[in-house]
Amino acid sequence: MPKVSDEHRTEKRQQIIAATLRCVERDGFHKTTMAAVVQESGLSAGSVYTYFRGKHEIIHAIASSGVTGVKDAISDLVPEAGSGEAPPPPAQALQAATQHLLDFSDELGINLPRIALQTWAEAAHDEEFLALMAPEARGIRASWLRYAEAAVAAGRFREGADPEKIAIVLTGLLPGFILQRVVMGDVTPETYAAGLTDLLG
Amino acid sequence: MPKVSDEHRTEKRQQIIAATLRCVERDGFHKTTMAAVVQESGLSAGSVYTYFRGKHEIIHAIASSGVTGVKDAISDLVPEAGSGEAPPPPAQALQAATQHLLDFSDELGINLPRIALQTWAEAAHDEEFLALMAPEARGIRASWLRYAEAAVAAGRFREGADPEKIAIVLTGLLPGFILQRVVMGDVTPETYAAGLTDLLG
Repeated sequence: MPKVSDEHRTEKRQQIIAATLRCVERDGFHKTTMAAVVQESGLSAGSVYTYFRGKHEIIHAIASSGVTGVKDAISDLVPEAGSGEAPPPPAQALQAATQHLLDFSDELGINLPRIALQTWAEAAHDEEFLALMAPEARGIRASWLRYAEAAVAAGRFREGADPEKIAIVLTGLLPGFILQRVVMGDVTPETYAAGLTDLLG
Repeated sequence: MPKVSDEHRTEKRQQIIAATLRCVERDGFHKTTMAAVVQESGLSAGSVYTYFRGKHEIIHAIASSGVTGVKDAISDLVPEAGSGEAPPPPAQALQAATQHLLDFSDELGINLPRIALQTWAEAAHDEEFLALMAPEARGIRASWLRYAEAAVAAGRFREGADPEKIAIVLTGLLPGFILQRVVMGDVTPETYAAGLTDLLG
């Protein structure tokens, strides 16, 4: 068997991911079968299955990639421990996170908020998929926890504020951004962050 | 045709709604057909179709009922205009709204957060259903707007705070509560409200 370069592998994976996204956006998660993904990708079934065992793995790869970006967007704002620097206000961190979601959506060329809603529904219905996705959600919360811990340590919140609970609320703001993008279509990273500033002010 | 009492109609509607919820929880939204609802309800197809034209109408009826409760939970905390009273802190209003969701879930005897995720996915994929559901989401936001307007008028937020943007953020907290209930399972109305208090404090 010929050796396959990393570049080739990455390209093929991207090709499969892009095909899956087109299928899910067009037909919904449930109607997107691996056969449809194979057809849409223009690759052979054997090739597609070399990279992914099923559509759950493909969607997880996309979600994981998006989540990594969101985590990085938050983590980039947390000063190193012991630096004595304070993290920016939560609204700025929220704006960075939501802006990343939209940038990632543009990069993929799909309506990521719509895809996100489909994956949540699947997780709500399929225990195996939930087990695959839950660590991603926990990862976002962990990034918010590091932010909240740094912010509490820097005296940004009231004395005795619990970083864990603050992290849960900040985590909770992201799904509400995504859902309102889909249903009302009028929320932007800027207005959402401005609302949080006004709420906190 | 014999006249049907309001009580009888309400009972039949509830019977159909309960059957639909059982089907959606067991099989997911997509696999829940009207035929399955008819079978699960124990009623005739003719009877079911007298009350609802399709599963979208049934789900909308449930969502609408839940949304009305959430709106009331928020509105109940907004003092009458001109009363000179200030509304409670946002965390208290948030707790009332999330607690209502869980109470309504108990009342229906189903896992409402899981059903909510299914309906969002359907709205993300079906324009007609989105058109049916969007006014419900806007209704929740309108209740938060009335709360935010009263709170801004009472000086609860900083001068110049925009009630519309505050309402969008408060609306955004509810989906994040629901999603974290399903995925992490550890969020309660109390911890979520406490997190908001700490974030605002």
